[in-house]
Amino acid sequence: MSEITVVSSNKSFGGWQKICSHESTELKCRMNFGVYLPPQAEEGPVPVIYWLSGLTCTEANFIQKAGAQRYAAEHGVILVIPDTSPRGVNIPGEDASSDFGSGAGFYVDATEEPWKTNYRMFSYVTSELPALINEKFPTIPDKQSIMGHSMGGHGALICALKCHGQYKSVSAFAPINNPINCGWGQKAFAGYLGGKEGDSHWNQWDATELTKIYNGPPLDILIDQGKADSFLKDQLHPESLIAAAKDAASLHLVVRMQEGYDHSYFFIATFIEDHIKHHVKYLKS
Amino acid sequence: MSEITVVSSNKSFGGWQKICSHESTELKCRMNFGVYLPPQAEEGPVPVIYWLSGLTCTEANFIQKAGAQRYAAEHGVILVIPDTSPRGVNIPGEDASSDFGSGAGFYVDATEEPWKTNYRMFSYVTSELPALINEKFPTIPDKQSIMGHSMGGHGALICALKCHGQYKSVSAFAPINNPINCGWGQKAFAGYLGGKEGDSHWNQWDATELTKIYNGPPLDILIDQGKADSFLKDQLHPESLIAAAKDAASLHLVVRMQEGYDHSYFFIATFIEDHIKHHVKYLKS
Repeated sequence: MSEITVVSSNKSFGGWQKICSHESTELKCRMNFGVYLPPQAEEGPVPVIYWLSGLTCTEANFIQKAGAQRYAAEHGVILVIPDTSPRGVNIPGEDASSDFGSGAGFYVDATEEPWKTNYRMFSYVTSELPALINEKFPTIPDKQSIMGHSMGGHGALICALKCHGQYKSVSAFAPINNPINCGWGQKAFAGYLGGKEGDSHWNQWDATELTKIYNGPPLDILIDQGKADSFLKDQLHPESLIAAAKDAASLHLVVRMQEGYDHSYFFIATFIEDHIKHHVKYLKS
Repeated sequence: MSEITVVSSNKSFGGWQKICSHESTELKCRMNFGVYLPPQAEEGPVPVIYWLSGLTCTEANFIQKAGAQRYAAEHGVILVIPDTSPRGVNIPGEDASSDFGSGAGFYVDATEEPWKTNYRMFSYVTSELPALINEKFPTIPDKQSIMGHSMGGHGALICALKCHGQYKSVSAFAPINNPINCGWGQKAFAGYLGGKEGDSHWNQWDATELTKIYNGPPLDILIDQGKADSFLKDQLHPESLIAAAKDAASLHLVVRMQEGYDHSYFFIATFIEDHIKHHVKYLKS
């Protein structure tokens, strides 16, 4: 288990917003993550909610802009915010575009050269990072949930749909619901996983396809989607997930279409309280 | 009256967070400001709270990091967030340091060359900008309050102490309470106002000195100060303002020393609800 270094620590709503770094064995590089420790964590172990960020983000965006600390403090949950990709691993082209490589790990385990050595964000966020968090912070290891935004909404959905029972609940803001059928997803999957649109090995990383075959325990999914989101039509496709979930007996999906809201953190900040309450319902039951 | 251009507009807590720009006659340059319009502003005029930001900030920091929109929406107040200095006016050295020139207007009206033509932030925030806001947005013009952080806390205090009756209440986070007696203030005042430490013409821009001579209507001042603020000892001097306010019959000053909190927006976000409630008490009475 790697050691962690505290990069920054700021008191926030009676608890502590920290940024830490550690050497990741999955990603073979030094990684930052954010962790918010509510006041209740000083008294004993508490549940954890993971937040997965979207394209171009680091751990900082959610920490600074979502205003989630207030609600984590009210409900006594730890928040963990990983970065969105390996960093500084010196792969040619890693910084060439905003939707692939650095800042765009897409929460898959890459199988293609030159990405497969480092770009293992799925194993990182579902296995290595939780093990580290559970060792270093006062968590209740079997009380965790996951949420995210855009690329990170896709990430949260596939983590919950693939790791049966690991997350008590899942939620997302404007997730990429069907990456195999949109430009962002197809570019990322072709690069990290090889092959092309229509290849069946992509399906295991697609929330809509995973919904069709889900046979895990009951899972309650909350999605908020802004109607004024400029990416809604071409990239996000909530209608695909809604259609797939109709026949999934163990999945309870609520998609709220929010009038006037866009893809920004102003949208996230408006509804993050509802998402934390959604998770707390399962984490504290 | 100048026209305004809407630079961005994001729905937030049922209202709209906008960034606008206009040609300032006081500052002789194009300026951005933020304005949050709560849902209630669609029904009729509402009160306004001005926020003055600290060194190095633009209008963006508070908008993105303070989480104030929730409380403005709850209480039905407009928030106005000016930038912290003129921009791009091509004065030699304007971008040379973080505590003077760009991003560091100190909310005074400069009298020294080469600053006096543009660096008129006091007249801008107390006169030109309110006139523009009251013309373009659904405000109640005689219901306004002011608050700020650090350099902007100094700004909020001097605006309220100099413009008797213009603001119904004032509050500050970690303000520079006595700029004539700290390094930041002395550097700024020497540059913008000329002269040196001890010169009496500096007193008219110093919250502690203004408190000693205040003879306006009753004014309720709320200040939050983090005890772990690394600037507390050398730059902020709340003890000076507290001592001055003891003999000021019309001023009611509460300074809350907050254990563990630093100078960051995490501190501001934690207590901004209290500050908005402080102002609403006077704006809605």
